[in-house]
Amino acid sequence: SVADKGVVSDWITLNVGGKHFTTSRYTLLVKEPLSMLARMFADDNNVYLMNPSAKDKTGAYLIDRSPEYFEPILNYLRHGEVILDKCVNPRGVLEEAAFYGIDSMLPQLRQLIEESTSQSGRSQSLT
Amino acid sequence: SVADKGVVSDWITLNVGGKHFTTSRYTLLVKEPLSMLARMFADDNNVYLMNPSAKDKTGAYLIDRSPEYFEPILNYLRHGEVILDKCVNPRGVLEEAAFYGIDSMLPQLRQLIEESTSQSGRSQSLT
Amino acid sequence: SVADKGVVSDWITLNVGGKHFTTSRYTLLVKEPLSMLARMFADDNNVYLMNPSAKDKTGAYLIDRSPEYFEPILNYLRHGEVILDKCVNPRGVLEEAAFYGIDSMLPQLRQLIEESTSQSGRSQSLT
Amino acid sequence: SVADKGVVSDWITLNVGGKHFTTSRYTLLVKEPLSMLARMFADDNNVYLMNPSAKDKTGAYLIDRSPEYFEPILNYLRHGEVILDKCVNPRGVLEEAAFYGIDSMLPQLRQLIEESTSQSGRSQSLT
Amino acid sequence: SVADKGVVSDWITLNVGGKHFTTSRYTLLVKEPLSMLARMFADDNNVYLMNPSAKDKTGAYLIDRSPEYFEPILNYLRHGEVILDKCVNPRGVLEEAAFYGIDSMLPQLRQLIEESTSQSGRSQSLT
Repeated sequence: SVADKGVVSDWITLNVGGKHFTTSRYTLLVKEPLSMLARMFADDNNVYLMNPSAKDKTGAYLIDRSPEYFEPILNYLRHGEVILDKCVNPRGVLEEAAFYGIDSMLPQLRQLIEESTSQSGRSQSLT
Repeated sequence: SVADKGVVSDWITLNVGGKHFTTSRYTLLVKEPLSMLARMFADDNNVYLMNPSAKDKTGAYLIDRSPEYFEPILNYLRHGEVILDKCVNPRGVLEEAAFYGIDSMLPQLRQLIEESTSQSGRSQSLT
Repeated sequence: SVADKGVVSDWITLNVGGKHFTTSRYTLLVKEPLSMLARMFADDNNVYLMNPSAKDKTGAYLIDRSPEYFEPILNYLRHGEVILDKCVNPRGVLEEAAFYGIDSMLPQLRQLIEESTSQSGRSQSLT
Repeated sequence: SVADKGVVSDWITLNVGGKHFTTSRYTLLVKEPLSMLARMFADDNNVYLMNPSAKDKTGAYLIDRSPEYFEPILNYLRHGEVILDKCVNPRGVLEEAAFYGIDSMLPQLRQLIEESTSQSGRSQSLT
Repeated sequence: SVADKGVVSDWITLNVGGKHFTTSRYTLLVKEPLSMLARMFADDNNVYLMNPSAKDKTGAYLIDRSPEYFEPILNYLRHGEVILDKCVNPRGVLEEAAFYGIDSMLPQLRQLIEESTSQSGRSQSLT
């Protein structure tokens, strides 16, 4: 990703559920160009859910979704890895990835959910 | 929820116990229309606990409740799933769901509480 | 608590150690009226530790204590339940509850401390 | 600490690594008066690392250190107890306590590090 | 690091993914002077990814990366120790350390990843 220097990159701030995330248009578009999130910020103004006028007072684009579970999605768009902290519920991230249309995340998230479910099932069967 | 495009949706910021949450009137109304939270923001100004003038300096509606445990409730209103992180105490979410009158969350939360109680009981009985 | 409508309730913002908490005078007074915290905000200006002029630039009352461990105390004043997340150290909450004089929280907090101590003792004795 | 009423106490905001902490000069000075942190804010302007002009735009004193691990140190200066949440790495707090010169915290922190190390060693030896 | 008094040190605020971190140019340069992060803020304006004009409205330098996993990296640059909290996924920190070119962190992070992987593998093999 250090090689992206040639791209003219606009900075975009999103207000996701009340929390501000700052990223670049490039990050939102390049990893999954057909996703709803990418189309929200595509150059040809292919606006879907978000009206260009739906900004808060600071100029951040308003999105009515969970801020916490958006973080690993934005990191995925930045570097392509699905990385969750131990206390984060992968089902929360799955809901958001499905909403934004980041389809390439879904198989890994479903596997993480399955692992955590089978673990708690296993620990219950210990008794 | 991508299908909601036809709805004129106002953006609303809530100041819950000092933390700002941004969402839409649509989210607050559609999932559980008879809840106290929905009635707070209903079009016919069926105001209950919250006076329309009770806003902070930024224009956010003031609610004197826990911000932390409100997050999974707002996510539930957005997509209909009860999702808690591992370190979150489900009893805290139950208190808030009962306060806001989101009755359809209560059975699942009670089950989560029962599971976590029986787990700690079980681990104690291991000794 | 939905029944409190008759009470004229002022909104109060506290700056506890650098973090803002918004609540009502009613919440601070009604649950434990003899506590130091209640007396700080009593109508007869029975001010103890906090001078009425000790506000920050935004008008929030300054309190030189931990913000993190104040959260479950404020929730307790709102609904009367002692609820801690799993990662929160109950000793931290006990220090604050004792400082603010919320005496009715102390027995439950002491029991939580005892339980967590005996658990770690037990897990050590497994080796 | 309720007995400190006689002390004229200035309110001080620190910007530690980008996060604001509000406390009193009294808290910074009284518990460990010979520490570097106390000397930073001593009346005789015995300034060490921090230049009086090193403030951010809001007037908070700038300190180039970790905000997260500073929290239990500030709580310790307030009430004299070393209290960490379960997920906090005690090595992080030790680094900061050593930096600020809060020497009376160091033995307890070293013991917490030793306990957590021996626990993980023990759990590894179970296989 | 208390011995660095002679260095003229500029204060720098970074806006990493929407969160502000305040540090000194000295911290960014001295520990790993050949890293991309150091070269971003080197005196000879050896700018790589970041254009000097890429600042937000408050004057903070914009970086399109994860804020959460940047914290232990900045702490490492401050005191030279790799310290992660228990719930933090070391793979997230590895991604960021590699991005910023803090090569001296990588071996320890890879070891932490290996340990956490072998632990979960081990706990799975218990069934």
